[in-house]
Amino acid sequence: MVAKLVDTAVLEMAVMGEKMKKRMKIIGEKAKMFPSKTWKTTWKVGREDPRRVIHALKVGFSLTLVSLLYLLEPLFKEIGQSAIWAVMTVVLVLEFTAGATLCKGLNRALGTLLAGLLAFLVEYISEASGRVFQALFIGAALFVIGAAATYMRFIPYIKKNYDYGVVIFLLTFNLITVSSYRVDNVLKIAHDRFFAIAIGCTICLLMSLLVFPHWSGHDLHESTVFKLQGLADSIQACVNEYFKEGVIHENEDIQSSSEDPIYNGYKAVLDSKSTDETLALQASWEPRHSRYCHRFPWQQYVKVGAVLRQFGYTVVALHGCLRTEIQTPLSIRAMFKDPCIRLAAEVSKVLIELANSIKNRRHCSPEILSDHLHEALQDLNTAIKSQPKLFLGSDAVAAASKKPGKKNSSSETTLSSVKTDSSALLEWKNKGASAEQSKEPSDRKVLRPQLSKIAITSLEFSEALPFAAFASLLVETAAKLDHVIEEVEELGRLASFKEYRPGDDEIVITCEKPRVDVTRNHLPSDGVD
Amino acid sequence: MVAKLVDTAVLEMAVMGEKMKKRMKIIGEKAKMFPSKTWKTTWKVGREDPRRVIHALKVGFSLTLVSLLYLLEPLFKEIGQSAIWAVMTVVLVLEFTAGATLCKGLNRALGTLLAGLLAFLVEYISEASGRVFQALFIGAALFVIGAAATYMRFIPYIKKNYDYGVVIFLLTFNLITVSSYRVDNVLKIAHDRFFAIAIGCTICLLMSLLVFPHWSGHDLHESTVFKLQGLADSIQACVNEYFKEGVIHENEDIQSSSEDPIYNGYKAVLDSKSTDETLALQASWEPRHSRYCHRFPWQQYVKVGAVLRQFGYTVVALHGCLRTEIQTPLSIRAMFKDPCIRLAAEVSKVLIELANSIKNRRHCSPEILSDHLHEALQDLNTAIKSQPKLFLGSDAVAAASKKPGKKNSSSETTLSSVKTDSSALLEWKNKGASAEQSKEPSDRKVLRPQLSKIAITSLEFSEALPFAAFASLLVETAAKLDHVIEEVEELGRLASFKEYRPGDDEIVITCEKPRVDVTRNHLPSDGVD
Repeated sequence: MVAKLVDTAVLEMAVMGEKMKKRMKIIGEKAKMFPSKTWKTTWKVGREDPRRVIHALKVGFSLTLVSLLYLLEPLFKEIGQSAIWAVMTVVLVLEFTAGATLCKGLNRALGTLLAGLLAFLVEYISEASGRVFQALFIGAALFVIGAAATYMRFIPYIKKNYDYGVVIFLLTFNLITVSSYRVDNVLKIAHDRFFAIAIGCTICLLMSLLVFPHWSGHDLHESTVFKLQGLADSIQACVNEYFKEGVIHENEDIQSSSEDPIYNGYKAVLDSKSTDETLALQASWEPRHSRYCHRFPWQQYVKVGAVLRQFGYTVVALHGCLRTEIQTPLSIRAMFKDPCIRLAAEVSKVLIELANSIKNRRHCSPEILSDHLHEALQDLNTAIKSQPKLFLGSDAVAAASKKPGKKNSSSETTLSSVKTDSSALLEWKNKGASAEQSKEPSDRKVLRPQLSKIAITSLEFSEALPFAAFASLLVETAAKLDHVIEEVEELGRLASFKEYRPGDDEIVITCEKPRVDVTRNHLPSDGVD
Repeated sequence: MVAKLVDTAVLEMAVMGEKMKKRMKIIGEKAKMFPSKTWKTTWKVGREDPRRVIHALKVGFSLTLVSLLYLLEPLFKEIGQSAIWAVMTVVLVLEFTAGATLCKGLNRALGTLLAGLLAFLVEYISEASGRVFQALFIGAALFVIGAAATYMRFIPYIKKNYDYGVVIFLLTFNLITVSSYRVDNVLKIAHDRFFAIAIGCTICLLMSLLVFPHWSGHDLHESTVFKLQGLADSIQACVNEYFKEGVIHENEDIQSSSEDPIYNGYKAVLDSKSTDETLALQASWEPRHSRYCHRFPWQQYVKVGAVLRQFGYTVVALHGCLRTEIQTPLSIRAMFKDPCIRLAAEVSKVLIELANSIKNRRHCSPEILSDHLHEALQDLNTAIKSQPKLFLGSDAVAAASKKPGKKNSSSETTLSSVKTDSSALLEWKNKGASAEQSKEPSDRKVLRPQLSKIAITSLEFSEALPFAAFASLLVETAAKLDHVIEEVEELGRLASFKEYRPGDDEIVITCEKPRVDVTRNHLPSDGVD
């Protein structure tokens, strides 16, 4: 008995040792990989958008420039210790785009100015009385102003436009008020500090406006083009995938879908709301910076973005048709393959034309809604009307599709979908088994068989229904083009795009650049601001 | 002739005067309205979430507390002018939730520490040589470190987790390096400053962790419940709207849809990605704060959010069916009213049960996928299969629906949809007319008649197609429940939710609180950070 226990202990030790070794090995491999991986990531970040490298160099240069205030004797004599505020301003205000820098710089200036004025008022009142009262008064003022300013930050309008300004207001107000208790020449301090901040802001503005400027408005413009092209790609890929023969679509995890070309096409559209609004807000601070753009209609870009998001949801639903549990057999799909593919091609042609029109700042071709689109819709309609028996269920359909070879594939599809479902069920059971140490196996067992109920019921559904949904959503995308064209035309009108000339198309297609996802530079950094 | 010109001039003056008067009146009214409007907004912000008031008071109190370092003689003697850094830290670090404060505080501490070490290294190297070389070396170091740190901020991993830390690192490094050129006792300065920042951070952490703490994890939890309930409401409202008789849906503007109860239900889900990720990131910094929650599975909440977003896109597509240009006549829809409404009710019942299970931190009922859902699916299937002639077009359908009264309503619907389309066309034409001053009327005229082509073609489509899409999407929502249930169950397992007891349901429904949209406190403030 004891020998057995010892044996078990030894065995456990051995197993643990083995585990430790494995873990050490993995860590060692990771450590070996780390430098090359870091280098790859670093390289990739720069290659994706070389403007990032330029921005980094600009920041470095500005910092060196502002540090001259310290390093050069005559300059330091002028400004003194307050030069630190210039350095601080440069670090905090210089942003990737000119709009963002302007927005932050002006917010900072405004906040500092207001805070300075208020602080003097507080000092003026408190100075009249004794030392103790002054301390009490300052404490009370800090509490009231601090609470009020913080509360103001929750008001949506202020949060959107002046959040940074309020923070700087609060900061400056506190610093001046508190120092005023210990220092006599507050006016001198305030003057020096304001001067230093002004120098810092000036350096930032000069660097961001004059040296290789990056414009938020330009990014907004590019990202709109990018989104239109992505949607066009998505629709085509989606329809091609739907009619691809021989592939039975399994339920992919939502995580793994990030590699999907269809998903990649529309994902930039879906989560574009906050990015669009931020870019538009920053663009609204930017001066007119391009001879192509008479007045930047940034709000119209947001509207185009909203319409595209609406369009994108339809594409998501279309994509959902590929993954749904109920699948129309290939034999039925094949009947509508050509008109569907043609319609999708026409829809994406329109989107690409819109993308090109925005990219080249010209109005879109008057033949954008060509007869081809019309004909494609008509063809699909004819094809659907010519198959009145679709709702009769698979047997009738198999009889209707006269080729005997197709019947097999139809039943095969049904069978393999069932298999997929039960394998999913099995996977679930295994998961439950590995989680057996948790205390609720009874619940799990009751739940498990019911989970698959939906999937199995679905299979009894009329098999033409999902195809009808697919076709209807495809027609819906065509119908929604109206809204998109409307908003893009409005954009062209507001931004005074140039006239369309018949030769434009050919030039456009040849000079297409590789597309960059500009939105990556503007990831919301909330929570860590 | 001259008299006429003068007349015209006088008239124009009068018109302009009138205009000015009107404008002044509007401005005057706005100015009058301003105080009451401001007060209303302020009041609303506080009533929406009273925790905002508490947070504002906390900030005020912390500022007063930290200012004691200045105001009290003995404390000031200890720390001196460095106390300013404590004030600064409190203003910048104290955030709405404990997680955000911890994240910023630790980032700040880490950034300061690293910057301090590097700055000493730079000083150590530069001090050995002459004054001029030292200045050159400092300038070069600032450039290199500044550019490198800024570049690092573009790397996604660092941007996500340590953006604020890198900014603080850069700031501190610059301040110390630059001052070291002019000041001798840098070590003393650095020590004081670090001490002051530590005091500031301590005050922030104490205030946010111990005094009425607000937890990001709690917000994430609440917002997940909120989203589930919103989706449930949306589906029900959507189906009810679809089968509402007598209302012909016009194409609403996308802007005006913000009042729509269906849209309000799912909008929180659609744009939840960045909010969810921010909250989860902050929650990951929070210590275990509730006896209900053994270990906060914040990443699982993000997964549930992702599944809900996928679910939400289907609901958006369903909503799109209400607004599509091609509408199935009411007579056809009426045939499927009951099974559809029943299915929607069952789907939202499941969602509400999931919401309740998360809200009360218990596992969901083992009968969550009840037979009712199964039956509802079956009923819909039967109803659809019993109408095999749906694809034959409206004439045949009118004959099939044997009541003669319904035929009228069918043709009425078709007619009025046509009317809607041509009125939209008219509106467009008017828009074009008001924009006549722009230079491209020729384009517009060519484009306009074609714009409506899609809409008119669509009407010739088989009228059952959109209903098929609607039904298919509804079934799709039911099928997607599987994924949602799976992730919520996984959440329950990871967070060790308590067992389901049969009586739980009744208690839950009675104690339902009014829902608060917690996400509003965490609007991405990007661009102005």
